[in-house]
Parts: sequence; structure tokens; C-alpha cells
Amino acid sequence: LAARENRKTVAQYDLIRSIEKVMLGPERKTHVLNKKEKEITAYHEAGHALVASVLPHTDPVHKISIISRGRAAGYTLKLPFEDKRMQSKKEFLDDIAMSLGGYIAEKTVFGDITTGPSNDLQVLTNLARNMVTRWGMSEKMGTIALEGEGGRALFGAGVEGAQYSQKVSADIDAEVKKIIDEAYEKAQNIITEHRKVLNAIANRLIEVETLERPEFEQLLIVHGIQPKRKEEVEVAPVTVNF
Amino acid sequence: LAARENRKTVAQYDLIRSIEKVMLGPERKTHVLNKKEKEITAYHEAGHALVASVLPHTDPVHKISIISRGRAAGYTLKLPFEDKRMQSKKEFLDDIAMSLGGYIAEKTVFGDITTGPSNDLQVLTNLARNMVTRWGMSEKMGTIALEGEGGRALFGAGVEGAQYSQKVSADIDAEVKKIIDEAYEKAQNIITEHRKVLNAIANRLIEVETLERPEFEQLLIVHGIQPKRKEEVEVAPVTVNF
Amino acid sequence: LAARENRKTVAQYDLIRSIEKVMLGPERKTHVLNKKEKEITAYHEAGHALVASVLPHTDPVHKISIISRGRAAGYTLKLPFEDKRMQSKKEFLDDIAMSLGGYIAEKTVFGDITTGPSNDLQVLTNLARNMVTRWGMSEKMGTIALEGEGGRALFGAGVEGAQYSQKVSADIDAEVKKIIDEAYEKAQNIITEHRKVLNAIANRLIEVETLERPEFEQLLIVHGIQPKRKEEVEVAPVTVNF
Amino acid sequence: LAARENRKTVAQYDLIRSIEKVMLGPERKTHVLNKKEKEITAYHEAGHALVASVLPHTDPVHKISIISRGRAAGYTLKLPFEDKRMQSKKEFLDDIAMSLGGYIAEKTVFGDITTGPSNDLQVLTNLARNMVTRWGMSEKMGTIALEGEGGRALFGAGVEGAQYSQKVSADIDAEVKKIIDEAYEKAQNIITEHRKVLNAIANRLIEVETLERPEFEQLLIVHGIQPKRKEEVEVAPVTVNF
Amino acid sequence: LAARENRKTVAQYDLIRSIEKVMLGPERKTHVLNKKEKEITAYHEAGHALVASVLPHTDPVHKISIISRGRAAGYTLKLPFEDKRMQSKKEFLDDIAMSLGGYIAEKTVFGDITTGPSNDLQVLTNLARNMVTRWGMSEKMGTIALEGEGGRALFGAGVEGAQYSQKVSADIDAEVKKIIDEAYEKAQNIITEHRKVLNAIANRLIEVETLERPEFEQLLIVHGIQPKRKEEVEVAPVTVNF
Amino acid sequence: LAARENRKTVAQYDLIRSIEKVMLGPERKTHVLNKKEKEITAYHEAGHALVASVLPHTDPVHKISIISRGRAAGYTLKLPFEDKRMQSKKEFLDDIAMSLGGYIAEKTVFGDITTGPSNDLQVLTNLARNMVTRWGMSEKMGTIALEGEGGRALFGAGVEGAQYSQKVSADIDAEVKKIIDEAYEKAQNIITEHRKVLNAIANRLIEVETLERPEFEQLLIVHGIQPKRKEEVEVAPVTVNF
Repeated sequence: LAARENRKTVAQYDLIRSIEKVMLGPERKTHVLNKKEKEITAYHEAGHALVASVLPHTDPVHKISIISRGRAAGYTLKLPFEDKRMQSKKEFLDDIAMSLGGYIAEKTVFGDITTGPSNDLQVLTNLARNMVTRWGMSEKMGTIALEGEGGRALFGAGVEGAQYSQKVSADIDAEVKKIIDEAYEKAQNIITEHRKVLNAIANRLIEVETLERPEFEQLLIVHGIQPKRKEEVEVAPVTVNF
Repeated sequence: LAARENRKTVAQYDLIRSIEKVMLGPERKTHVLNKKEKEITAYHEAGHALVASVLPHTDPVHKISIISRGRAAGYTLKLPFEDKRMQSKKEFLDDIAMSLGGYIAEKTVFGDITTGPSNDLQVLTNLARNMVTRWGMSEKMGTIALEGEGGRALFGAGVEGAQYSQKVSADIDAEVKKIIDEAYEKAQNIITEHRKVLNAIANRLIEVETLERPEFEQLLIVHGIQPKRKEEVEVAPVTVNF
Repeated sequence: LAARENRKTVAQYDLIRSIEKVMLGPERKTHVLNKKEKEITAYHEAGHALVASVLPHTDPVHKISIISRGRAAGYTLKLPFEDKRMQSKKEFLDDIAMSLGGYIAEKTVFGDITTGPSNDLQVLTNLARNMVTRWGMSEKMGTIALEGEGGRALFGAGVEGAQYSQKVSADIDAEVKKIIDEAYEKAQNIITEHRKVLNAIANRLIEVETLERPEFEQLLIVHGIQPKRKEEVEVAPVTVNF
Repeated sequence: LAARENRKTVAQYDLIRSIEKVMLGPERKTHVLNKKEKEITAYHEAGHALVASVLPHTDPVHKISIISRGRAAGYTLKLPFEDKRMQSKKEFLDDIAMSLGGYIAEKTVFGDITTGPSNDLQVLTNLARNMVTRWGMSEKMGTIALEGEGGRALFGAGVEGAQYSQKVSADIDAEVKKIIDEAYEKAQNIITEHRKVLNAIANRLIEVETLERPEFEQLLIVHGIQPKRKEEVEVAPVTVNF
Repeated sequence: LAARENRKTVAQYDLIRSIEKVMLGPERKTHVLNKKEKEITAYHEAGHALVASVLPHTDPVHKISIISRGRAAGYTLKLPFEDKRMQSKKEFLDDIAMSLGGYIAEKTVFGDITTGPSNDLQVLTNLARNMVTRWGMSEKMGTIALEGEGGRALFGAGVEGAQYSQKVSADIDAEVKKIIDEAYEKAQNIITEHRKVLNAIANRLIEVETLERPEFEQLLIVHGIQPKRKEEVEVAPVTVNF
Repeated sequence: LAARENRKTVAQYDLIRSIEKVMLGPERKTHVLNKKEKEITAYHEAGHALVASVLPHTDPVHKISIISRGRAAGYTLKLPFEDKRMQSKKEFLDDIAMSLGGYIAEKTVFGDITTGPSNDLQVLTNLARNMVTRWGMSEKMGTIALEGEGGRALFGAGVEGAQYSQKVSADIDAEVKKIIDEAYEKAQNIITEHRKVLNAIANRLIEVETLERPEFEQLLIVHGIQPKRKEEVEVAPVTVNF
């Protein structure tokens, strides 16, 4: 059993390496951050990792790094416990909160915001919008699909003059904002409550630049946060946050 | 007569097999769902089948399956009693309710919603919109055709600046929402009232993965629901729900 | 004179046959309607024919049929008494009412509506819109031409951002709806008042599938409706309703 | 001098003939109007000619005809006294009233409107709109040019999202309508006041089909309307009304 | 020094001749205006020249002509005292007033407006709009650039659905109108106050068709208006008004 | 160490020369400004340089020039202390204020505005808009990304009729204006308070046409403004203002 566990771990290790290369590009050793930027990036990634570890419907964190890769200054990598084909509203809500973790950490620690979280904001806005317009996950909009596959308008596709009324348009915007604002509050509470763990993760990252799962989970345990076990979480596909 | 009945059944059996292949693609034995996903899919399909069986203007259910085919995790298949060239407002309203059956079952049983019903929502929104804008089936909009064949705007086609006024635009949106909300309530009531049948169908599906018409109707009868007979239903073309 | 009359009738007979072929396509003997659909179609066509016969500014009905041709389940054919180059507001208003006759007959008799009248709704909406936007036939909009030949915007043609104001846009929509609603009431009154003739025409159609002008006019006379004579009607081009 | 006058008249006669051919197309002897249509057309053209003769800023009428040419059922032809390179607001206002003369004559005499005036409405709407948006001839809009040469937007030409505000858009629409409504009242008053001349012109047209300037002016004089002389009118380019 | 002055004048004379040819096209001796049109054009150009001479931030008038050139019936030509690379808000405001001088002169003298000023209106509207949307010259809009080089939208360029809000759109329209209305009042006051000079310039133009700078300035001095000297005006590029 | 310092300075000197050539084009010795324009340009550049020197989050000024280069009449050049990969909200706010320095200097000193600052306005509006729509730097809009990379709409990209509601559209416009207005006030206060330094810089520029960093900082020190040292400022990429 231990051997099988071991093989699985080796396979997973290889998987993570190839994900890093394909999704993020090669390491950029020459492209070093200055001291201040390194600090910001460390807190940003620590924010993602901390929120992901406290919320119940996200996948466990496998690696955190502040070594630049491609356009990303740093990244946090999660892996599900087993293959998953479906995602649910509760999982999406926690994913949005986790994506906001980097932005909130920057703001809380430095009282300033960089352009670093701009990709996070794009991803989470898109997700919130799909929840409202495609997946029937907003109580107010109900079970209407406003957009079809690939972002095509479901109705009015060929009709030049057919567009949402101002009312529906404003309802969509308000629901998207509401979803994001609620996730923001959830993530902000976690970062405020666990500020010491955030500092610990960030400081360790500045020191060693990359944290693998075992050391990361040890940090959590030391500060009283129990790492995720298979029983506690629903599986999800591999995801990376910058 | 029995022989003729038999031949008819054989022909129908072949028809269903080819519909499954063409409309859904081949079975995907390697693409297995995890335990939780299997459970969600079983309740989703049971929701469709139950609502279709209780409403008066839908075709009878011939098969329910949670074996993945193409992009669908599962499907429910209905067949009309005889060839049909026309469909009516009452049939469309029941079809919309039946399409919502999967979404409502997921929400009622698990208190969460997946992206599984997204195709259902697209189909039923499109249907409700056509009722309002093309077929004169909304009292409020009256006998105005707002869209022509293939989604082309009936009027203003070539006129860049000619579009519906905000008022008409908002009226369309409100009527579409009203049709869907009323169908939702109808379907929710059926699922609440017949929760035990829903559980029975879903559990049997998890066990055997595919339910053919005879066994499905036996389950209905056991729980006091009389299956559809020719006298009770108006015929409709073959339809499949995911 | 009788010979000339005869020749004229023969010529007209040929004309009608070629109109049927060109405008509707060949008969589709294999594409039979089921019993319920045949009934709906018979009442639908009877609705067109009855309204056309009672209103003063429509052409006389020459033939009614429920034999499927092309995409049409049935059709009603009218012919003007002589060549016509112009059409007037009064003729358009009666044409719109006549087009609604099929829809209203379905709804009155069966309490349900099929997609059958969708082409009627497109034609009459387009007509009502042209009255308002191109022909100065709406008191409220006055003698402004909002659209030019072929649906092109008369003003603002080349001006990307130049479109009707919300007010004008809403006024057009309201005037179009008003024209159609008034025609609806006119047609509904005829069908309610002459329900017995409607039944007689529909039942005879179910029996014989096609009614030529002499037999149709006999049915009208029996129920106290005087068929149109040259003196009573202004001529119009040949028109067919599905 | 008389010889010179004569030569001028001959030249003018040739000019009118070529204008008719080029602007209207050849006579269509085979394309005859029925009796009712002939009557409507005669009153329509008489309406144009009468209003043009009473208003002070239009060119004198040279010919009226109800012989079909190209797409026109009839036409009224005016010629200026001398070459003109400029047109003024007062001339445009009278031209709009004159264009409405045909529509108003139809409505006043028959209590119904045909599609005959649709080209008149397009021309006069376009003219009224240019007065408001290009030539600074609306007090309310002031000396702003909203559109440039050839209908191109003057400002915002390349700017996708730059369009008139709802307020300006509604102001334009209201000013265009106001100009047309005032011209309508002016033309309606002329036709009501001079109804006997209208009848006389129309009846003579039905008899002879074409009225040349001398006979037309004789009809005016008989009914107490003084034909235009050079001193009384500002010259304008050749124009034809259908 | 006198010789140098002389050479400069000769060079300037040649410059003006080539500007006339390139910007306006050749003289059109055959394309004569009628008596009334000549009068209107003379007052139109006199209006431009008078307003330009009274306002402090415009360049001095060098030539006025009512000989047709290209599409222009007449023109007024100004030259700056020295080369200029920048223009200011005060200069633009006076240029707009000067452009309105032709329109106002026509309206004041004849109580009617021709299409002659249409090019003036386009130029001044465009200028006023640029002041508001590109150059930060409207107090209300502030230092926001709403449009970039060449009329391209500065923001939202690639964003289909991103356009100004109704509020900003209405603010722009209102500010453009305010600038033009204030310039109108300024120009109207000048023309009312100096009506005698306007008459003198126009009458002399009808007599001689072209006024060069020395004679024009003599006319100003006679009526108590001091011509511009280098000390009093900021230089600007060569401009022509039609 | 001094040698290394020296080498660094030489390298920086070359860098600045090539930036000037590539970003601005060659010097245009023949394209001289007139006296008034030289004065305006000197104050414009002095405005940029002064505001940049007083605000805490901008890079230090390395060179100011009023020798025309390409389309720019003059320019102010800043260099960061070390390489920078990230920019923050506080830096952007100070950059916007610094960009407004030229406009405010012109207005304060001459009571008039030229088209000179038009490029500044474009750059700063674009920056303010990105802060609101892409980088989550507006409290009111929150952490919603309204636009993606390269100005593409993040949501609604493929959806013809999907655009921001009027409310969101107006909120964006209001937030952009608020950011710019606050930066304006900040810059205006600096220019009012340090008017004597502004005059000193502008006058020296008129004399020598180009100020290098040492002389510029000497001017600041004389007037009691301490030049930036490494400890006080966060680094930023090289930027030029016209």
C-alpha cells in the first residue's frame, strides 16, 4: 500500500512539474523581483493559499512559489483528491473567495494594491457572471439561461436590435457584484482572523521561495488549522492561481 | 395483433438505439463518474422522468440512463404515441416544467446546484422566448411576431438603428421570466409531493444504471402514479433530456 | 358573353393551379396530418375564410384546402375581381384582421394555440409596421417616413450612432400593437357571432379536404352571409393565407 | 424679343421631355390604372399642383400628368424662372407642404390613404431632417451641425460608442415632426379652402390625362388664383413630384 | 527695411494666390450667381469679416471675395502675423463666433437662411466638440479626454459594449451647445452693433466682387473700428471661411 | 565606488539619449517656437517637473527640455532608482497628478489653455479608466474586472446585445472623473503653493532650453524642496511627459 501511495506521489510530482511548464512557462531566473516586489508577491500567494485552506469546498494546496514563471510573479497550485467532472455552486463561491485572497492580502498588509491581481479579477468576474447568466445559480435571475456555450447570446443571437432590457442588464450586473462582494467578505474575515499564519507563510516563502505541501501543511497545523483530508472535501480539477 | 405490437416494439427499440447514438454519441465506459457525481446524475434524471410522468401534455418516458454518452452524464428519453406535426402552447408549458425537473431535483436533494442543467436552461429559455416573440403565446405581447424564422428580426431587419423600445424589450424579458417561473413552481410541487418516487427512481438508477419503460412504469404504479396511456396524451416528436 | 365568362373561369382555374404550385409547392400526399391536427387545420383555414368573407375590403375567397402543400398544413386562397396597382389603409386593416382569423379560430375552438399561425403573425406584424413607419397610416406618427424602400432606414442611413429616440421607438411599437389589437377585436367579434358558419366550414373541410368557391359561398348563404359581388369590393392582388 | 421668347419656350419644351424620360422612365401605355386608381391619382397630382400654386416660395407648375411612367402612377413637374444655386429655409418649408398635397388630397376626398404617397413622405422627411441636423434651420437645435456631407455623422464618426444622447435624439425627432406637422396644416388649409379648384383640376386630368402649363393656369385664374410671375417667386432647380 | 517689407508683401501675395487655388479650386466665371444669390453671399462674407475684425483672438482678414471658386460661392481669407504651432481656448472661442458671422448676417438681413453656412456649421461643431472631448476646455467635463487622435474613442476602443453613459453623453452634447450658443450671442451682438459697417462691406463687395486688405481696413477705420496690429493679436495658421 | 558610480552615470546618460531619440524622434532645430509658445511650453514642462518632485510616489526627474522633438514641443523625463516590475494604486494616483501638472501650469499662469496637454489627458484618462475597470482600484466598483487584456471586454465578449447597464456605465464614468478630479486638486495645490519654484524653473528653461538633473535639483533645494533620494521613493519604469 505504501509503495502504491509512493508511486501515486511520484506520478503527482511529475504532473505538477508539467502543469507548471505548460500553464506558466519556464522559470525566469534572470527576471528577478526587487526586495519590495518579492515581499508583495509572497503575501499575495500566501493569501490565496490561506483562504483555500480554510474554506470547505476548495481543493488542497500542493505548492506555493514566488519564483517568476512566464508572466506570473508567483503562483499557488491546487490538486483535487480524485477526478471530477462536475462543479457546484458552493465550489464556485469558495473558488471566488480564494481568488480574492491575493488582492486582500496585499491591501491588508501594505495598504496599497498592485496590478498583480488583475488576472485573478478577470477569472473570478467571468466565473461569477457565468453563475448568473448560464448556470441558474442566482436566486434573483432564476433558471433563465442568458448566454449559451462559448459566450454566445442564447436568444437574440441573429437579431441585431434584440438585446437585454436595461432592467435585466442591471439585474445581471447587480447579481455579479453581490456574489463577488460576499466572497470578498468571507475571504477578508479569514485573512483578518488568521493574520499570524499569513505572516508565517509569507515570511517562509521569502526565505525559501517555494513551499511544497508537507511543509505548508505543517505551518497550518502549528497555527491550529487542520489540513484537508479526503473525507472533508469534494474533488475538483487541477487549478493554479497567480 | 400481438405480433404486430411486437414488431412495433422491435422497430421502436431500434429507433431508440439509433437516436441514442446520433443525438448523444457513443457510450463512454472509460469516462466514469465518481460516487457523488453518479448520485447527482441519478437524481437529476429522476427529476426529469418524474415531472414528465405526472404532467398531462408531455410524451411518455421510454428510457432513463446514467451511463455517460458524449457530453451528457445521463439522459431521459421520451417518445410520442404517434407522428406529430404541430405543437401547442400547453405542450410547450409542460415541456419547460419537465426540463426544470433535473435542476429542481438536484437543488431539493443536495441543497446545491451543478453546471449539469446548463443545457436544460438554454433549451427552455429559448422555447419560452419563442413562445413570446414568434408564436403569439403571451397574452401581454399579443399576436405580434417580434422575430422571424431562424431568429432573424422580423421588422427592422435592415435598419441599423431600428430596435425594440426599452418598454417592449423589458416586456419580452418579463414574459419569458414569468413563463419559466410558473413552470418552475409546477415542477417543484410535483417533486415535493412525490419525493418518495423520486428517491425510488434515483436509487434504482444508481443500482442498475439504465431503466427501460416497463420497469420505470412499475415504479410509478407502486407509488400510486398511473402511467400515460394513448387516450390521455397528445402525441409529440421524440425528445431527449440530459 | 357566357362563353367569355367561361373562358375567363377556365383561365382563372389554371391561374389558381399554378399559384398553388409556385407559392406553396407540390401536394404532399404522404405527409398526412393526424386526426387532431386535421381538425385544428380545418378550423384555422375556416377562420381565415370566414373573416375574409364578412369584412368589406378584402378580396373574395376562391378556394380553401387542408391538403398539405410544402410547409403549409392548409391554405385559403383569395382573388381580386380585377387587376390592382394600389392598396389602401382600409384594405390593409381588413387584411390584418383576416390573417388573425386562423389564430383566433384555434384559440376559440380548442382553448390552445399551435405554432401554425406563426407565418400569419410575421406577415401581419410586418404589414402593420410598414403602415406606421413608411406609409403615413398612423395618426399619431403622422406623415413621417421612418423607413425607406427595402427596409432601409430613411434617415441616419450612414450614421452609426443615429437612431430613433426611445420615445419614437416606443411610439412605433405602441402604434403597431394598437393596429393589430383593433384588428384582433374585429376578427374575434366575427368569429364569435358566426360560430355556426365556422363549424360548418370546418366540418365540411374535414369531410372533403378542399372547398371551391361555389360550394363555400353556398355555405355562407345558408347561414345568412351574402357573398361578395363586384360592386361591393375594391380589387386587390392575388393573396394566399396558410 | 418674341422670337427669343419663342426659342426659349421651345428649348424648355425639349428640356421637359428629356426630364420626363430620364427621371421617370418611358410611358407605360400597357400598364393602365383601373377607374378607381385613375381617380385617386388625378386627385393626388391635383393636390401637389394646387398647393404649389398657392404657396409663395415654390416654383411654378409646368405640367401635370396621370399617364404612368416607370414606377410613378402620375407626376407634377415644376420649373424655376432662372438658374438657382442656393435654397432657403422658406423654400424648403413650402416644398414640404407641396409634397404633402398629394397625401392630403387623397385623404380629404376619399377618406382613405394608399401607398402612393410613400415616396413623397421619404423625400420630405429627409428634407426636414437635414434642416434640423445639417443646416441650422431649427431654432431649438440651433447652429449645431449634427450630420456632415452624405449623411455621415459629423462628430463621433470613428467612435463606436459615441452617439447622440437620448435627449438630443428626442429633440431631433420632435423638431422634424414639428416642421412636417406645420407644413401639413398649411397644405390642408389650402386644399380645404380651394376644394373646388382641386375638383376642377382632378376632373380635367381624368378627361385629358395631361395638363400643360397654359391650360392649368387658366383653371387657376377661373377660380380666382393668380398664377406665379417672375416678380413673385424666388427661382429653384427643376423638381418633379409623383 | 521698406524693401524687405515689400518683398514680404510680394511673397504673401503669391502665398494667398496659391492658397486660393489649392483650397478652393479655380475661379468659375461661367458659374454666375443670380442677383439675389450675389447679395446673400456678399452679406455672408461681410459677416465673417466683420466678426473676425472685432474679436481680439482671431487673425486679421486679408481678402474677401464673392467670385465663385470650386463649391464655395464666396470666401473670406485670414493670415496670422507670424508662424504658429499652438492654438488656445480663447482663440477657438473667437474662431467659432467668426464662423457664425455668415449665418447670422444672412438671418439678420434677409430673415431667411440658406444652405450656404452648412460647411461653417460642420467646422464649428467639430471644433466645439473637440474642445469638450479632447482638449479639456470645458469646465464641466474637466480634464478627461473622451476621444483620442483622429476621432478614435480613447477608452472602450475595443470593447463592443463599452460606451459613454447617457449622463456623460448628455453632458457632452450640452457643453458643445453651450459653447456654440455663447459664441452665437457674441457674434450677433457685433453684427447688430456694427450693422452699418456690415452694409458698407457687403455693398462694396457687390460692386467690386473682391476686397483686398488695405481697402477693407479703410472701410473699418471709416466706421470707427481699428484694424488689428501685431501687438494686439496672437498669431494663428492661415484659415479660410466660405 | 566613485568609478562605479561614474560608469553608472555614463550608462544612464546614453540610455537617456536613446530614449529621447526612440520615443520622441530627432531634434527639430528648424521647427522653432515663437516667443509666446516657448513661454507656454516652459511653464508646461515646469508644471510636470514640479509636481513630480513634490509627490512621494513618482520617479525623480532627470531632464527637462523645450527643444522640439517629433510632435512634442517639450518634454520632462523621469527615471526610477532601480528596475521595477509592478506598479501600485498610490503610484498611479501620483502619476495622474503629475500628468496634470502641465495643464494646470498653463491655466494658472496664462489664464488660457492650449491643445498642448491633449496627449497628457489621453494618457491619464486611460490610466484612471484601467484603475476602475481592470485593476480593482476603485472602492465603489470593487474587485470586478470589467475589461480584460488589451481592452477586450471581459464578459459579454461574444454577445452582441450584452453590454454594461446604464448604471454600471455611469458608475465607471463617475469613478474615472473622481480619480482625475482628486489628482487635479492635489496638483493644483502644489503649483499654487510652490509658484515661485515654478517661475524659477520656467525662466531658467527659457534661458537654457534644457535642464539636467543636477541643476534642476539645485533649483528645488534653493526653494526649500528636498530632491528625492533612494530611501524615499519606490522605483518605476522610465517615463516621459510631453
